[in-house]
Amino acid sequence: MKEFELINRYFKGRGITRRDVNLGIGDDCALVTVPQNCQLAITTDTLVAGVHFFDDIAPRALGHRVLAVNLSDLAAMGAEPTWVSVALTLPNIDVEWLEEFTEGMHEIAEYFNVQIIGGDTTQGPLSITICAKGIVPEGKALRRSGAKIGDWIYVTGPLGDAGLAIEARKQGLNIAPEHLRYVNQRFDYPTPRVAAGQVLRGFASSAIDISDGLLADLGHIVGMSQVNASINVNNIPTSDAMRATLKRDQQLPFILNYGDDYELLFTVPDSNKSMLEMKLRQYGVDASCIGQIKSGEGLIELMLDGNKLEYDRTGFEHFTKESV
Amino acid sequence: MKEFELINRYFKGRGITRRDVNLGIGDDCALVTVPQNCQLAITTDTLVAGVHFFDDIAPRALGHRVLAVNLSDLAAMGAEPTWVSVALTLPNIDVEWLEEFTEGMHEIAEYFNVQIIGGDTTQGPLSITICAKGIVPEGKALRRSGAKIGDWIYVTGPLGDAGLAIEARKQGLNIAPEHLRYVNQRFDYPTPRVAAGQVLRGFASSAIDISDGLLADLGHIVGMSQVNASINVNNIPTSDAMRATLKRDQQLPFILNYGDDYELLFTVPDSNKSMLEMKLRQYGVDASCIGQIKSGEGLIELMLDGNKLEYDRTGFEHFTKESV
Repeated sequence: MKEFELINRYFKGRGITRRDVNLGIGDDCALVTVPQNCQLAITTDTLVAGVHFFDDIAPRALGHRVLAVNLSDLAAMGAEPTWVSVALTLPNIDVEWLEEFTEGMHEIAEYFNVQIIGGDTTQGPLSITICAKGIVPEGKALRRSGAKIGDWIYVTGPLGDAGLAIEARKQGLNIAPEHLRYVNQRFDYPTPRVAAGQVLRGFASSAIDISDGLLADLGHIVGMSQVNASINVNNIPTSDAMRATLKRDQQLPFILNYGDDYELLFTVPDSNKSMLEMKLRQYGVDASCIGQIKSGEGLIELMLDGNKLEYDRTGFEHFTKESV
Repeated sequence: MKEFELINRYFKGRGITRRDVNLGIGDDCALVTVPQNCQLAITTDTLVAGVHFFDDIAPRALGHRVLAVNLSDLAAMGAEPTWVSVALTLPNIDVEWLEEFTEGMHEIAEYFNVQIIGGDTTQGPLSITICAKGIVPEGKALRRSGAKIGDWIYVTGPLGDAGLAIEARKQGLNIAPEHLRYVNQRFDYPTPRVAAGQVLRGFASSAIDISDGLLADLGHIVGMSQVNASINVNNIPTSDAMRATLKRDQQLPFILNYGDDYELLFTVPDSNKSMLEMKLRQYGVDASCIGQIKSGEGLIELMLDGNKLEYDRTGFEHFTKESV
């Protein structure tokens, strides 16, 4: 199969058609129209075989995942996802694989009303790079740098499930079949918190998606906002699967350090707290208040059962390195 | 070196800063503003080691090249390049390599006033994916599908130099040192015809950049425009290096089938011909009229010395397969 045929078969004329796409797949460039009084938000993420996913990943899950991790970055800015470009490097043309991979991609694209407007298909070691674009009303984007002293710290959804899925595959944890199914679903088909991100606009002072782990990503917020954070570990939400599988001490690395959950972490000024909580309930978004922003220069304090948690610093490597 | 450090050292705070970039490298997304009454043009191209470039390519040339091939697609739409995202997959961190690679990238970005607004750095087999964005006045973009019967066919610059460079490396052609330097420069540091593309807006009826070879890319225009083309091969511009190195018959595959020249191929209605030629001279753009659009359904006729050129069909594989 030639590149041209592959694009025609799996991309062109499939998926949704947005009215703001003036020219889609098939020319030198795609052409789109950004609405007035909106800024364009742009993000890029690459997934490489053997590095970012297991070789035995279901192609449908991979197609879903690569789009999800990009849409999650748009969600973290409070942007509405609109268009994506797909650069696909394949070792060979495997028709069955491509069918499932693109099915997974088109499913999530349709769900979020996103159009695949173009891309590139090349031969080489398996990797996928997405460049996702979205729109956000002028001046309303959620940045990492906006957290202020006294702001409350929130996360959506339970944390640590993706980590549990990874460890279950690696070392075979003692986990009940229904819980394993749940964490595998969470890992394979992560849901970018797009609606939550848009609700946060105008209420939250900063936001980030949890891709590298709670402490690593909170580290970006406190580092860029030049503040400290105090987290009550007891308030970090966990799933039934997590609580049924691991004792609380064992849960800590999963909820604090594992990434890949793609939940949103955000800060809210006290004056917006009750209004935002009402809005989140209204939109069916689960979010938990897990701490507060303090004065300081980028440190995170962890409290567990009312005591300061002394945590092995090696667990923080990613965070400490990046927050300096 | 961590990803964070790598980005800070080689990307953040280097290169130009555009006023329409509201937020650059360092958050979940970049934020930019598209001017009113402009459309956004978007293109993506991947270069994979061993497939799109020789392993011994100078890293500075690679950095230049990967941006150039993307800007060339914007040029072919008549767009003004503005912002690029860079997804870089590296087998390891080689400081010297990275310094030269990013130098090559920043040089061409600065020349064309393009800002690197974000990206991703991952570990894996060497490949680079760029997503380039540009702006074009509403309704003025040059598409592949606009060629009409009677339109004149033009190309910028001489063709075949990149192919000559490739063959000189592969099989050691008998080529004079000064000519070898010239074709290597043309291959390693291709110049996207950005200014030419913008001059063409309002005059040309269709355009494409020559990345796959004259016949392949003209095949896209005649296929999408549902017309035929007649090309006078005698009028295809060649360089001194080409004419000094190969006899005319030997030149044919280079000027007709080799790609990687990144010149523009475009069609012009007869009523715009003299005005466009004046404009091109004014902007210092070399362009040659090489033929005319005829009625038909996607075929190309080649004339050489007044005779129809019967050309080995295998030389057309890419074109015939894609134009059907």
